[in-house]
Amino acid sequence: MSILVVGSVAFDTLTTPTGHREKILGGAATHFSLAASFFTPVRVVGVVGKDFTAEHEDVMRSKGIDTSGIEHADGLSFHWTGAYEGAMSEAKTLGTDLNVFGTFAPKIPASYADSDYLFLANIDPVLQLRVRQQLPNVKLVAGDTMNYWINDHRDNLLKVLRELDILIINDTEARLLSGEHNLVAAAKRVMELGPKSLVIKHGEYGATAFFSERSFTGEQGTPKPFRAPALPIETVVDPTGAGDSFAGGFYGYIASQPQLTPAVLRKALFYGGVMGSFAVEEFGTDRLARTTREEIEERFRLFVEISHLDGELKPDAK
Amino acid sequence: MSILVVGSVAFDTLTTPTGHREKILGGAATHFSLAASFFTPVRVVGVVGKDFTAEHEDVMRSKGIDTSGIEHADGLSFHWTGAYEGAMSEAKTLGTDLNVFGTFAPKIPASYADSDYLFLANIDPVLQLRVRQQLPNVKLVAGDTMNYWINDHRDNLLKVLRELDILIINDTEARLLSGEHNLVAAAKRVMELGPKSLVIKHGEYGATAFFSERSFTGEQGTPKPFRAPALPIETVVDPTGAGDSFAGGFYGYIASQPQLTPAVLRKALFYGGVMGSFAVEEFGTDRLARTTREEIEERFRLFVEISHLDGELKPDAK
Repeated sequence: MSILVVGSVAFDTLTTPTGHREKILGGAATHFSLAASFFTPVRVVGVVGKDFTAEHEDVMRSKGIDTSGIEHADGLSFHWTGAYEGAMSEAKTLGTDLNVFGTFAPKIPASYADSDYLFLANIDPVLQLRVRQQLPNVKLVAGDTMNYWINDHRDNLLKVLRELDILIINDTEARLLSGEHNLVAAAKRVMELGPKSLVIKHGEYGATAFFSERSFTGEQGTPKPFRAPALPIETVVDPTGAGDSFAGGFYGYIASQPQLTPAVLRKALFYGGVMGSFAVEEFGTDRLARTTREEIEERFRLFVEISHLDGELKPDAK
Repeated sequence: MSILVVGSVAFDTLTTPTGHREKILGGAATHFSLAASFFTPVRVVGVVGKDFTAEHEDVMRSKGIDTSGIEHADGLSFHWTGAYEGAMSEAKTLGTDLNVFGTFAPKIPASYADSDYLFLANIDPVLQLRVRQQLPNVKLVAGDTMNYWINDHRDNLLKVLRELDILIINDTEARLLSGEHNLVAAAKRVMELGPKSLVIKHGEYGATAFFSERSFTGEQGTPKPFRAPALPIETVVDPTGAGDSFAGGFYGYIASQPQLTPAVLRKALFYGGVMGSFAVEEFGTDRLARTTREEIEERFRLFVEISHLDGELKPDAK
């Protein structure tokens, strides 16, 4: 079923140990959409400027992504400049030109109104909440956030957290949001703020999902946390968008399934890792744009091989 | 088959966010032996002082550990004082009193000569090499080291690395030893120095094993890396010895099996994680000392449940 994603469609200027790129296609909604598009129909709400050409839009449209909710405004697109060093576990922001994104007021096309799954990518929680309120009947709401909103817009963010079925954040954000060092304690505290489930991304070490009594429909009790690996990759070219690609693979797979069961969520975590592992292999959206579903399934099997004691998944796995 | 472990048998004075303990039983060889003893016979070579009583020795002897290779010297035992804060991912050393350990010259009892498996815990590489040379016919040699030896005794350490079937170190040590940020690149570089296999411990995120063409007997090719999870634990009381307990569970399981196959090594990584997860739940050796094999198997199943898509291991898993 269709996912509606609201978030940034942007340009990135990047320096990593392997190279430099000027104003290449990026943005959370872009990476998320591309990754999710392999699993389910995706609709984007965002804003771009005059520098966003038909060629850029075609990167998404060629994957069947509905871009009719991307507003074309007068001015330049959001432009982020960043650099990575060493282990590339954290980006250093060198410049943030919000441009048309600075006055972004998400508009949801009428044709998007029947979307079943909503993903609130990392934007101002005021806007996340406004979009959520315009789609009261969606089946599931997932979202992301970042340090800036946690630190400086906490009250607004708390209103969004109460609306979320699944929050997807990283270790640092989970610790910051909860005030807890220990990740299990942090997860409990974060879920007390609203999200029914929590996915904490550990970068190169994979991800852990934490559950509550309300995580699944028709399930009894609270399943134990589940840990999914990341692929050991020797040449990480560009980590930008890895987290958004993870979220896209994760949520895209969930939206492709009839019910959110523990088994679906576990597989979704693996698909998230798979899409994140592709994303970092080349600059920007290059690798995801030319991925095939066949490659994705092959890498999914590789994820099982590197993490399962018997090296393969039971054919009758529930 | 029997493991001979050489390393520190010591006392620790510890401060963690949950409490403080003075001169409790510790040391790499102690933690390793206790963890390994659940799987296979263990023999210890070490040195202690007059403060090491029969009661301390009984912690090991009650698990069937052969302590006849622990030399009782005139003076005090090695005493480490350390503290942990916040996420407790790193210990802060407040004091290192080597005492009788400062002049440690490992002596291997005649009754230990038929040991099949050798574990060189984290001690001066000169001593590691001397022990290894006294046991030329062991079936497998594994070892550990730390930043101090990597930085300041590199030439001696390199001689030890050439003797190792399996090196077990953490992320920081792998990066320091290789000069590489990326862990896959680091693993390759480290294995070029000698070890046939490499296990990199990621603390709360689990561990990854890397293989070479020489990792297994009778196997063709080089298996892909394998990642094992760590258990998400809400209350970490004392992380001291977690890595040594991991190594003990890992190597103890290997020594209990007829051959070192990829399937055995994968299960060994899980048993390593299991023993590490027990170790941190209480101060010092308390939790490992009262663990049962039944509890270990139960937690092994829990490790499978939190990491396998189908939540259980195939009964016919090779």
